[in-house]
Amino acid sequence: MLYRIGIVGCGTVGRGFLEILDRKAAVLEAESGFQARIVAIADKIKGSLISPQGLDIKKTLKALNQGWPLSAVDPEAVLPNGSSSAEIIAACPADIILELTPTNIRTGEPAAEHIRTALRTGKHVVTTNKGPLALHLRELRELAARKKRLFRFEGAVMSGTPVFSLVEHGFAGNAIRGVSGILNGTTNFILSKMEIDDVNYGEALAQAQKLGYAEADPAADIEGYDALAKVVILANVFLGANLKPADIRPEGIAGITRDMVRAAKAEGQRYKLVGFARRTVNGVAAGVASRRLPLSDPLAGVMGARNALTFDLDLLGPVMIEGPGAGRIETGQAVLQDLLAIHRELK
Amino acid sequence: MLYRIGIVGCGTVGRGFLEILDRKAAVLEAESGFQARIVAIADKIKGSLISPQGLDIKKTLKALNQGWPLSAVDPEAVLPNGSSSAEIIAACPADIILELTPTNIRTGEPAAEHIRTALRTGKHVVTTNKGPLALHLRELRELAARKKRLFRFEGAVMSGTPVFSLVEHGFAGNAIRGVSGILNGTTNFILSKMEIDDVNYGEALAQAQKLGYAEADPAADIEGYDALAKVVILANVFLGANLKPADIRPEGIAGITRDMVRAAKAEGQRYKLVGFARRTVNGVAAGVASRRLPLSDPLAGVMGARNALTFDLDLLGPVMIEGPGAGRIETGQAVLQDLLAIHRELK
Repeated sequence: MLYRIGIVGCGTVGRGFLEILDRKAAVLEAESGFQARIVAIADKIKGSLISPQGLDIKKTLKALNQGWPLSAVDPEAVLPNGSSSAEIIAACPADIILELTPTNIRTGEPAAEHIRTALRTGKHVVTTNKGPLALHLRELRELAARKKRLFRFEGAVMSGTPVFSLVEHGFAGNAIRGVSGILNGTTNFILSKMEIDDVNYGEALAQAQKLGYAEADPAADIEGYDALAKVVILANVFLGANLKPADIRPEGIAGITRDMVRAAKAEGQRYKLVGFARRTVNGVAAGVASRRLPLSDPLAGVMGARNALTFDLDLLGPVMIEGPGAGRIETGQAVLQDLLAIHRELK
Repeated sequence: MLYRIGIVGCGTVGRGFLEILDRKAAVLEAESGFQARIVAIADKIKGSLISPQGLDIKKTLKALNQGWPLSAVDPEAVLPNGSSSAEIIAACPADIILELTPTNIRTGEPAAEHIRTALRTGKHVVTTNKGPLALHLRELRELAARKKRLFRFEGAVMSGTPVFSLVEHGFAGNAIRGVSGILNGTTNFILSKMEIDDVNYGEALAQAQKLGYAEADPAADIEGYDALAKVVILANVFLGANLKPADIRPEGIAGITRDMVRAAKAEGQRYKLVGFARRTVNGVAAGVASRRLPLSDPLAGVMGARNALTFDLDLLGPVMIEGPGAGRIETGQAVLQDLLAIHRELK
């Protein structure tokens, strides 16, 4: 089955997805009959294209890798300047829109409007964007249900490490009592570095920035807001909560000193920034806090930029999944995973 | 949708599954439309019943818990003595057969014949039995494909901790380069105990037997044959190998002494019995061996009777799942998980 796909926001994740598609198109078709044609790309900086017959993926990747404007890929497909992404989403002949713009955790825009437009005009949606999910999950799911379209977002938490599909399939039959996890790779890298290299917070942060694990402005990671957005999404999806990021004040890691890390180590413990959500008698309790975990806690063993999530299940008890939390190919795979889930549903 | 289910071998796992069904029937129906009616039970010791209108689950559980013969549940449904399980499978009005007899790793029987009979007579099959999978996977899958029936076995490895469905859905799009894991809870319990309580092998084994983690005859666990059966299944399912248990000589844990465990600990390492299978230039290499792992290895943090499996994936790199490896309810949930997957496929 051939799916016509439109990509909105073609940065790192979009490029990762296209790289995978380029590498795996033949295998995917042979193994499951899945075929993809990229019929539109809308990107604020790189330019926008609509091409009903499908863009050449190798040419598109070359333009993205070279930093060329997308007009170089197919001059005939270029749209007039000033076409908004929403207009392109509405007009393009796509079956599925990939919403891959950067997260804005305060407003969720423009991603939320992109998703609404796509669903309203009859397109399935895959996103990796935490903003619209943390702020508008219920509304967007209701819209998708009303329009009988699929709406998936595996890449929003822990990149391609399966979280949502794990619950959907692997934990079928269980009730989820709570989740807790290491949901931000930057802070976990810094805390690991402080312990292993016995350095202070500033040195570890500088290392993280040098290696590309931390942004030039690392506030969203360091202060716990990135982990918080993920906790809110997990609480709302898995525990039926209706939290907003503004409901919770996260704790960050900037207050953790080398001496604290040393003292914990001497007692067989380790600092981790833990995001959690659990059912209580009054509803759902959720938060992000730095915790001193005993080394016997499976989360304590999760080192470097890696992520992990422990589910507390009524039938299985605790089950943990540990894997990458970010990355171009890793998040691109999350998009592919969602597309293959849609394919399974529709074929 | 209502499924008529026949249970062959109604020991611990069958009882666990029936307990879950008793507890969750209403929720399952409300959430996904899944309904189950137990139309047959065939058990060598407890007796056999066929009841087209469905057995009373509470009464059945009571009989199983009290150790009563199954004739107590429904005297009218009792079959004449001497009816073989295969005859019951062929004759009963089931849509799905649960093959839950104990594993015989040398012959795979009588489970393999039960599964063949079920598939040949048009029934889907769910099993938790390692024997037929380790010995006859290809043949049974081909038979299922020819008969257009579903054949699932989530519970054969790591009980309800998702392994096969994790690959099927969560890792969709990835190629698997290899797996390695802690696949036997008894040996992991013993090794953990030796380190934590600083006791020798014999004391730790006695503890494991006292707590029910080890059989009176623990050879299959201790010598690595249980882990080996799982490695063979994983290699054949995930790497397309065609191994038999007899192809591989496992290493066990009986040679590991308290002094060795102490010495490893002093160097920040830990003994684990690791099962592995990986693609090589010549095919697939697989085995079971005790390994000294650095504590930084995620498998080193898996303690007590718990199990874990790390997948090496081309797109995601290493991803680990950690959870229970055995248990009445945990394996019963694996059966339910497979039934819900069948429901998803058929509905």
